[in-house]
Parts: sequence; structure tokens; C-alpha cells
Amino acid sequence: MVTTTIGQYLIRRLKEVGVDTIFGLPGDYNMPLLDIIEDDPEVLWGNNANELNSSYAADGYARIRGVAALVTTFGVGELSAAAGVAGSYSEMLPVIHIVGTPNTKSQAEGAILHHSLGNGNFQVFVEMYAKITCAHTHLTHDTATKEIDRVIKQAIIRKRPGYIGIPIDLINHEVTIPELNPLNLTLPKNPARTQEVALQVVLDAINHAKHPIIMVDACVQRHGLEKEAIEFVKRTGFPTYVAPMGKGIVPEDLENYRGCYAGSITIEGIANEVKKADLIIELGSIKSDFNTGGFTYSIDQGKTISLHSFATKVFYADYDKVAMGEFLPLLTNALPKTPRVFNLGPRHRPAPIEAGTEITHNYFWNKIPEYMDPNAIIVSETGTSEFASFNLKAPKNAFFITQVLWGSIGFSVGAAVGAAAAARDRRVYLFCGDGSFQLTCQEVSVFLHQGLTPVIFILNNDGYLIEKLIHGPHRAYNNFQMWQYSKTLDYFGGHLERNLSDVSPAPVGVEALVRTREELEAAMKIVKAEPKKIHFLEVVMPQFDAPRELILQVQTSENR
Amino acid sequence: MVTTTIGQYLIRRLKEVGVDTIFGLPGDYNMPLLDIIEDDPEVLWGNNANELNSSYAADGYARIRGVAALVTTFGVGELSAAAGVAGSYSEMLPVIHIVGTPNTKSQAEGAILHHSLGNGNFQVFVEMYAKITCAHTHLTHDTATKEIDRVIKQAIIRKRPGYIGIPIDLINHEVTIPELNPLNLTLPKNPARTQEVALQVVLDAINHAKHPIIMVDACVQRHGLEKEAIEFVKRTGFPTYVAPMGKGIVPEDLENYRGCYAGSITIEGIANEVKKADLIIELGSIKSDFNTGGFTYSIDQGKTISLHSFATKVFYADYDKVAMGEFLPLLTNALPKTPRVFNLGPRHRPAPIEAGTEITHNYFWNKIPEYMDPNAIIVSETGTSEFASFNLKAPKNAFFITQVLWGSIGFSVGAAVGAAAAARDRRVYLFCGDGSFQLTCQEVSVFLHQGLTPVIFILNNDGYLIEKLIHGPHRAYNNFQMWQYSKTLDYFGGHLERNLSDVSPAPVGVEALVRTREELEAAMKIVKAEPKKIHFLEVVMPQFDAPRELILQVQTSENR
Repeated sequence: MVTTTIGQYLIRRLKEVGVDTIFGLPGDYNMPLLDIIEDDPEVLWGNNANELNSSYAADGYARIRGVAALVTTFGVGELSAAAGVAGSYSEMLPVIHIVGTPNTKSQAEGAILHHSLGNGNFQVFVEMYAKITCAHTHLTHDTATKEIDRVIKQAIIRKRPGYIGIPIDLINHEVTIPELNPLNLTLPKNPARTQEVALQVVLDAINHAKHPIIMVDACVQRHGLEKEAIEFVKRTGFPTYVAPMGKGIVPEDLENYRGCYAGSITIEGIANEVKKADLIIELGSIKSDFNTGGFTYSIDQGKTISLHSFATKVFYADYDKVAMGEFLPLLTNALPKTPRVFNLGPRHRPAPIEAGTEITHNYFWNKIPEYMDPNAIIVSETGTSEFASFNLKAPKNAFFITQVLWGSIGFSVGAAVGAAAAARDRRVYLFCGDGSFQLTCQEVSVFLHQGLTPVIFILNNDGYLIEKLIHGPHRAYNNFQMWQYSKTLDYFGGHLERNLSDVSPAPVGVEALVRTREELEAAMKIVKAEPKKIHFLEVVMPQFDAPRELILQVQTSENR
Repeated sequence: MVTTTIGQYLIRRLKEVGVDTIFGLPGDYNMPLLDIIEDDPEVLWGNNANELNSSYAADGYARIRGVAALVTTFGVGELSAAAGVAGSYSEMLPVIHIVGTPNTKSQAEGAILHHSLGNGNFQVFVEMYAKITCAHTHLTHDTATKEIDRVIKQAIIRKRPGYIGIPIDLINHEVTIPELNPLNLTLPKNPARTQEVALQVVLDAINHAKHPIIMVDACVQRHGLEKEAIEFVKRTGFPTYVAPMGKGIVPEDLENYRGCYAGSITIEGIANEVKKADLIIELGSIKSDFNTGGFTYSIDQGKTISLHSFATKVFYADYDKVAMGEFLPLLTNALPKTPRVFNLGPRHRPAPIEAGTEITHNYFWNKIPEYMDPNAIIVSETGTSEFASFNLKAPKNAFFITQVLWGSIGFSVGAAVGAAAAARDRRVYLFCGDGSFQLTCQEVSVFLHQGLTPVIFILNNDGYLIEKLIHGPHRAYNNFQMWQYSKTLDYFGGHLERNLSDVSPAPVGVEALVRTREELEAAMKIVKAEPKKIHFLEVVMPQFDAPRELILQVQTSENR
């Protein structure tokens, strides 16, 4: 038997599953838990600027690490994080949201406490969270450790957020429990006979196909099956594409990698290849509007095999519970050792740079990869940057983060904090529009405070460009106050002496307002040469210039 | 019969109940509604920097105007506003939250659209909002106008938020309805016989009381009964106190006004007066922790009469449905024409200013009223400023805004935007700590953009002071990145030329970092002299100095 406290038990479980940074904000119902975090040399406190941003940070961290945690306070704090946690639900990231709640006595009495609705109901927020998490609990003395295990396990297995409410008096409450065994996070075995049949059907289809292709999408990454997917891609030799949400999963230097497919917004040559396919093997697909060019996939279900997280579909037949994690390696192993060869000619690329001095999207997204480091983490904000990133030439071993399904503007700034904290040895490149940046700008101060050194691009085209393209290009509601974006690092204290923290602040590199290609390239040379600094570029772009992909996407949704 | 569109009908109803500014952000599911708002010369679009801030702005506006409206987009936008709307529920403000949702066809098909959870469920967010609103609806063709009326009416009568989801295709959908009559917003009549008995019992108690007092609290303001309350205070002549949430309702120049009562954190002389009372008549009281000095009211229920919004309680007896709005004027009229006289001596005041050069709380809050204009709207952030404002000497006809019950840090910045928009002829004074300011700083750009001219004080004591007093004074988690607060107006574009908007921007006045009393007073002379400008003062205070009221409050909650 082991004696511990509920708070210590919770942090121990989080560490066990791979969490080394916990995001969030202090509040008077959660501070004893923050003591445990601060006193534990194996976890860092994320110290975000507000709760929404902290939830975005947790989401970004979970994309890299496979799991993340977030601590907020009752009512005010947790609800401020709801949009971010719902995003993690939508996009399938296991974020454990821990909420410090009033003590059990006050709750039992129905006291009218601050941060409550004033009606004595202390379950109302966990009930709201029940709708955007896959497992939730509001801890009690008796079942706390079991409930913690249940929620963490469910979240990790199902790749959705979990919610743990912990009354403040339970944080340091002692419990005696049996010797601690690691959580069992393995999925149940696939049903053997169903899987055998599915395998045979898939192999038959593969043997008969003349133009088979592979389409890789986000669920491969969410379930940590990148290696298995790449092995399959290599072994088959089939022309391989990614959906927008799958960008980055397949190394772009693989010979049979062909590009990004998203229905009618695809580069024409790529779309033509997909059109010719007589067999499409989808790995982990998510058929959302922005991931499919507005539902313009012209792919015949009778030619499509889909390996999903928890099921397999072959043409019109469902093989229930045949989950990709077990099935995909089986399939790979059953294939011939030598890949097939397809001569599709050179890869189709975005249109080359047009001459000029202005920083247009065509120029910017073609040019910027030249300055990016290998292992880059590329965080693209919802809207303009997101669509532009679909056909970006990825640096070697790049990782892409963008919220194609949930699409909350402002997400990228927080997510980049989480990504940078999750991978301090990789360089983070954040691309965010001026409009989106206004929602979550203060999170830049967290990069500075936590010693994180991303390269931040604010694409300033003076307004909500994606909104203008969709509706009301000249409407006042699609415009807003102009800021002095290039002074961001200075305003958020990048040059101030610091007394109080034991984390080294981020040294400041470039802080520039660039209006021409010449200015951008001069700045990027310094950025490239100084990897251990935080850089901030305000990139002025023509007001209505937009990436080709965004323009096409908007056309698909005009009658939505 | 009248033909209109559902969107136009909604905006017409909002105008009818007194809304002339609608807060929120554009999103691709709500933009046709924003067209209607932008084209209507009688309403202004609030143009907030993010949805949380827009919900705080709506709350602040509703405090002044009695009702407010907020427009966000489906999923991402509405959930970002949840903490603010829940605050309006907690603090009883009728904020109508309008959410643009996907079109009815896509919803019926369960399409996997951006801003959704990707599971085809389009009711999940309205279901979450059902828990933090008093009425909610997701409009359909058939019942839209009736549902709009129901939600607006319920919200205004019950003083709680209402939620209206409007599918994008219904915004411009035509409906033919009977000639439009104004909404009936009158409360049902009180039960006559119950009221007669209650009146007699209350009058008897008043006649027998030797030391009767009056305690005025927030619900008086929420139900727009300030005049009726003041009339009662004048007619009785009884010594009158306000609870923290009632601060500002009773003009402080009334002879029988005595100060703010909040249990054990009350100024000693005031507490002694209350202790002597043999009858306490409470008007609209809310017995929350921070409104009662942590439940340290030493008031005997056997001596207490409570007039509530929808009931009356006399000692231990409840008079159900005897609502204050009808009962209070009846009571006043039944009293003798001549007020009683009580000789309580001079009013008890906060401790006078101690000598020194540093800007301490004792100095600051005593000094600052000298520079404030009559009709001031004083917005005090949760925490330090809130507690300091309890005993602030109010300028003539001042209005106080602070979130004593919900207590969401960062609220004040958004609320001040709403208050300033609601009363462009009054001067707004915003007092916010450095920690809270970090959560919602971008809303300062909305003041600038919308031509609003508050006086903003950022009290910089380098950390979350209230948290430090409660727990972990030297913990890293109670500290954060230092910003260059005094550059705020510059950063958010206060000095940039503007091309795009038809609203005149706010001219910038003082932008100062003040560290001494001399510097503060010099700056305040300019602030006083230039009422038509926005002013921003970063006020540096000693790190652990705190208002007396905050220190005492923390002591009451040490074992919570």
C-alpha cells in the first residue's frame, strides 16, 4: 500500500502518460495543486496569459506529445477555456482539463460563492463540459483515484478531452492505495475473424487495382500511427497524397509522395492523378468541409477503402471494431516486399513566384520555405495561412499544426506556445493574420516569459480577409483598429530586465515591419542565422490578395 | 399584416427594448445579420477584439441600459463568450446572446462543418447555454418570431441572459406577421391579500423599531428600482448602508447615507452602527461571500426584513410573489410624510492619507476621487480594485461596476467598453490590476476604434496580488511577464492614421508611467482638464501593499 494525496496522485499520473508542462492560470480554488506542480522538478507550469490561450496551448502540446493537461479555476476560468477544449474535442486531442472547485463543505451547503452562478449549483459547469469531453468527473473522497484513472485513460484511448473537477480540500487529502501500476492504455484487440476477412478483401482489392493511391489524414497522427502509415506508403509504392489535416504526416521527400488533395481546391495536376485512381486507400480520414475542398471529393465510394481509428470500411462494407492501429501493420506485412513502381512524372507544384516587389501570397508562401529549418513546427492560423499551408513545400521532418475542422481564430498563437513547450529542440514558425492575432495577442508574452523562441509572422492585410472573401468585402464589420504589430515584443516586455522568474527569458532577435520582398529577405537572413532567439515580423500584404486555395475554398461554400 | 425578415425582426425587437449598440465579432455564420446591423442607422456594431471581451462589454452595457445584445458565430465564437455570459447570469444582467449557426439544410444533414464538433450535432452548444441562460432557442422557420419574443421577454423580466441561435439561411428569410405590438414586459401583479398582510407586518415592525436601518443591494439596480429605493430612504430618514454590490445606488450626499457594510471588512464605526440596529430593511440583497465580508454578517434574521425581486421575507416569514417593484412604492406611500431624525454624528470614513511619496493603496484611493468628474462610471476590476472601491468617496451621481459575485479577472476592460458605449456623455474610470489586464488587454483597441474616451488606470504591483494574499505569496505561479503597460495606447494604434472606419477614433491624452504621488497628481491634472480624450496611466505600486478591505476579506476566507 502507498499513501499519497489526491493532488500528488493526479500529477503523478499526468507525468506517467508523458506530460511535462501543465498549462493554465492560478485561481483561488486551484492554488494548492499549483504548489505541487511548482515543487515538482519534473513538470513545468505553463503560466499562460488567459484561460482560452491556455486551452489552445494544451491543444498544441497534445498534437506533439499525444496528451496534454490544463488547470483552471472554477466557473470563470474553466468556461473561459471552453472554446479551446471543444476544439480539442472536435480535432481529437486528449487534453485533460483539471478544474479546482470550491471545497466539498461549501458545495454541500450550496453556499453563494464567488465564481459560481449564485444558485448553489456546483455541478453546472461539469455538466456543460460533459458535452465537449469524452469523460468527466467531479471528484469525491471515496473514488478520486479511480476516477482520475478512468478519465485520463478514456481521454488517451479515445483521443478526446477529459474533465476532472477537484474540490480544493481534496487536493491535499491523503489516500492510501495499492502499489501503483501504470495505466493500461492499450486498445482492445480487433475481432479476429472480422479482421481476417477484411484483410483478405483489402488484399484482393489491392491486387486487382491498376491505379491505386493512398490518402493520409489526421487520425493517423492523432493515434500515433505515423510510422505504420509511412511503412505502408513505402512498402506499396502507391502514389500518396495527404488531406489538409494530414499535411506533414508523410515525409515530402518520399519518392511516391505526390502532394495535398482537397477536392476542387487541389492543384490541378494533383487532382487529375487522384481522378484516375481505381482504388483509394484512406488512412484516418476526416471528411469535414475545409478538409475536402467543401465536400468536392469526387471519389467513388465503390473504389474507396477507409482505415479508421476504430473501424474499417471496404467499399460499401463496414468491418466494425477493426481498428487501424492493429490492422495497418498486418496489412503492410501481408504485402509484397517490393513496392510497385508508378511513373507519374515530376510532382505538381504551386505556381512559381510572379515578379514584383510587393509581398503577395504567391511570393510569400513560395519563398518562405527557403528560410525554414529542418524539424520545423509550422503553426498556421485558421483562414488565410491555413489554406496557404496546404501546398507549402515542407522542410524535412516538418510538423504542421492548423485547426482545419474547429477553426477558431486566434488558436495559432496559443497552440504555438504549446508546441514550442512540447518541443524545445525544434523551431516553431507561427503564421497568423492580423485579425486572428488580435484575439489572443497576449500569449506572445508567454513565449518571452518561458524562454520559447518561435519565429512569428503576422500577415497584416488590414482586416478579416477570409471573412471579406466570404461575405461583405467592404463592410465595416470586417475591419478593426490597426495596431503597431511590429512593436509586439517590445510591448510585451521583451526588452525589460526580469527579477522574479527562474526560467530564462527568450532573447529577442528580429522585430521588423516588412513591406517589400527585399525587406523580408533581409530580415529572414538574420532569422535563419539566429535560431536561439524569438523573432517577430509584421508582413504587410496587399489588402485583398489571397492564397489561391482560399479563393477556391470560398467558392465551394458560397451557397452553404 | 407586415412582411419582414427574421433578422430584421430580431434587430427591431432589440431596438424596441433599448439596445443601440450590439457587441460581438463577425463569423461566416452570422455575417448577413451584421449587414442588417451595419445598414441600420439606429444601431452601432460594437466591433470587439474577441468574443470573451464582447460578452463582458455586453454585461457592462446592460448594467447601464438594463439590457444588451451580443452576436457571435457558431461553436468557436459562442463558447469563447461563455464565461462572460455565465457572469451575466450570476450577476443578473439580461444579455441577449445571438449566435449565427449553419444553415438548416446542413444541420439536417449532419454535415461535418467547420466550427462544429465534427459529429453532426448542431444542438450541443445551445444545450450548454441552456445552463447559463434563463431562456434559449435555436430558431426554425415556423416559430422564429414567437421564439425571439419569448427569449427577449424572459431575459428582461428575469434579469438573466437569453440565447437565440439563428441558422444563417433564416436571417434573410421572409415572414409575414400581424401588426407589431411592443413586447409586454410588465411583471404579474403581486397577490393582493398576501401583499396587504406583508405591508401591515412591515409597517408594524417599522413603528416599533428604535434603531431601524436600511441596507441597499444590487437587485435594486438590476430591476431599475433606484428611484423607488431612494424615495424610501429619504421618506424614512433611516440610516442607510449599501452592500458592496449596491455601491452607488444611494447618492452619497443624502444626509442619512452612512457607508458600505460588508460584515467583518466594514469600517469599524460603520459596523458598530449596524450592530446596534434593531430592524434591518434589506432592499434587493445578494448574500454572496465577497458581498458579505465572507459571510460575516452578524445580522439577526429575527430583525431582518428583506424585499427581494420576486418575494418578501419578514423575519422568519416568507411572503411569496410579493415582488419589490410593486411593494416598495406601496410601503413608502404608507409611511409618515416626515422622515425620522437620527443623530449618528459624522460619517465614518476610511483612514486618511499617510505621509510618503510612494503610491500606496491608502493614498491612491483616498486621493483619486478629487480628480473625478460628476456622473462618473467607475469600473473596478475583480480583486484589489474591487475591494478598494467599497469605501471610495463617490463623485456625485457615480455609477459603480464590479463583478463581486462572478469575479472573472479581466472583466473590467470589456465591461468598461460596454459602459462607455452605453453612456457616451459620462466619463468612465477603469481601475484594473496588471494581472487582470493581461487577460483582456486587446479591448483597449476597441476604445480607440470606437471613439470612446475612458480614463484607464493599470495598477502595476507585478503579480496577481489577491492570489498572493490568499495563497503562495512567493510562488512563481503568481507572477508573470512584465509588460510595458504605459505604451498600451501606442501599441494598440492610438497614434496611427486611420482610413477605413466611419467612427471617429478616440484622441489620445495622457500616456504615463507614474511611480510617485507627484507624478500621479501632475498626470491627473491633465486628465481632469481634457475630458474628451482617452487617458492611460500605469500606476506603479509597492508589490505587497493592499487595500485594507482586501486584507480583511482574505482573512475571512482563509479556511474556505
